[in-house]
Amino acid sequence: MNRATLIAQIYQKHSYLCVGLDTDIQKIPKHLHQEKDPIFAFNRQIIDATIDYCVAYKINIAFYESLGARGWESLEKTLAYIPNSVFTIADAKRGDIGNTSSLYAKAFFENMNFDSITVAPYMGQDSVSPFLTYPDKWVILLALTSNEGSRDFQMLKVQESAQDVEEFLFEKVLKISQLWGGEDQLMYVVGATHPQLFEKIRQLVPNHFLLVPGYGAQGGDLQALSKAGMNQDCGLLVNSSRGIIYASADKDFAQVAQKISKGIAEEMKIYLGQ
Amino acid sequence: MNRATLIAQIYQKHSYLCVGLDTDIQKIPKHLHQEKDPIFAFNRQIIDATIDYCVAYKINIAFYESLGARGWESLEKTLAYIPNSVFTIADAKRGDIGNTSSLYAKAFFENMNFDSITVAPYMGQDSVSPFLTYPDKWVILLALTSNEGSRDFQMLKVQESAQDVEEFLFEKVLKISQLWGGEDQLMYVVGATHPQLFEKIRQLVPNHFLLVPGYGAQGGDLQALSKAGMNQDCGLLVNSSRGIIYASADKDFAQVAQKISKGIAEEMKIYLGQ
Repeated sequence: MNRATLIAQIYQKHSYLCVGLDTDIQKIPKHLHQEKDPIFAFNRQIIDATIDYCVAYKINIAFYESLGARGWESLEKTLAYIPNSVFTIADAKRGDIGNTSSLYAKAFFENMNFDSITVAPYMGQDSVSPFLTYPDKWVILLALTSNEGSRDFQMLKVQESAQDVEEFLFEKVLKISQLWGGEDQLMYVVGATHPQLFEKIRQLVPNHFLLVPGYGAQGGDLQALSKAGMNQDCGLLVNSSRGIIYASADKDFAQVAQKISKGIAEEMKIYLGQ
Repeated sequence: MNRATLIAQIYQKHSYLCVGLDTDIQKIPKHLHQEKDPIFAFNRQIIDATIDYCVAYKINIAFYESLGARGWESLEKTLAYIPNSVFTIADAKRGDIGNTSSLYAKAFFENMNFDSITVAPYMGQDSVSPFLTYPDKWVILLALTSNEGSRDFQMLKVQESAQDVEEFLFEKVLKISQLWGGEDQLMYVVGATHPQLFEKIRQLVPNHFLLVPGYGAQGGDLQALSKAGMNQDCGLLVNSSRGIIYASADKDFAQVAQKISKGIAEEMKIYLGQ
């Protein structure tokens, strides 16, 4: 999906919600265990219930990989079920030397036709660039993640040379990686748990989309992050996983997921109009 | 596998060679394409040919993942074929928020019974620690990788506080991550392409094992890195992938792989004896 289409979808649906399909066989309602493919049965109902209120689905690959070959089948069926009008994210946090990243790109962009993949920056340019050779496919690079461990390295002060101003490592990641791909191919992960840093981040990457995890179960505030993070094209995809898909553990899970995602979209409509 | 067994294997085989199974359907000899599972057929012959000369196999997950469900089958068969006396590495470069890293750990340590997995440090402690809860299983943390992009972030100068001495980011990774797990659970990736830094690295992590990629196809020098990197328990696993498994593209690929791995082991025996 290209940037213009993504923006058009956001303003058509009045939503920049991304629903995270962190589908855990241990957490889905018991009655689905009778289904042939319980994971896909759950995802299908979640997608049907939320698709009018979100513009993206983020599939957390670990949840499928941990089930082996069976999990990959559920993943492929889920991806095929999502219409092309909705942006899809392989939340895989991949990144390796060039020849290996090329194969991950093939796996997620050719074999599976995801619109985007999350990539870890630690190994540098040649680990990221193989993902940037596909037109209308996106790299979503980890900049400042939502977890506690984001403070261990991402928030270390770094300096390239003696003349250089000190900055956090994640700021260097934002600055340096912009040279690798433009705002039509590259987004950044910025956790909702760091609202005080959104303004600074927007100075460094005014035009790029930000994928914002950590809203909902991890605790970020939608109003604050929208105000500080939004740009003239919206520029935000705010993800909620557990807060939507596991809001009810009962037979009404899809209705409850719909109610919650509708509520979030209504709130987002207000911020989009401002 | 625990540390004592790994060290015993090294001194028994007089080798610290790791053979990388970066098995690419495009690169294996043509005659294997007739086999039901060409990837496994190739790996089986490589393993038979090299097992007397190496102590570890590193399976590059991207090569299997890029083939979909079929690839995971080849991977599982390959892993099952490797005897327990040989250390196995899932070269997967995973790392995510805690609940997600737990699932990757489950995938590679429970479902697949690998001895170890490579993990990227960018997301910090809670992304790594779920892999450290398994006894006799190992995290091999990326410190200084062998690729060109290792210079982009890993070699930035960082400072934790004004009193703090400036160090490269990868040195901080080595220092900080030592608090997360001991030398019987944690190894580090240090590329053979940075021989001048091995001495400094050994000052920071005198006892940990180092997994050294970048020897062979990527050009590192075995004598120099062995001299600078070895500790009293050897402490090295030196990986070669393409330089061994694709040394011949013909029917004699396994014999040639044997000859090369035997030659490397003979050289290693000398360095182990010194």
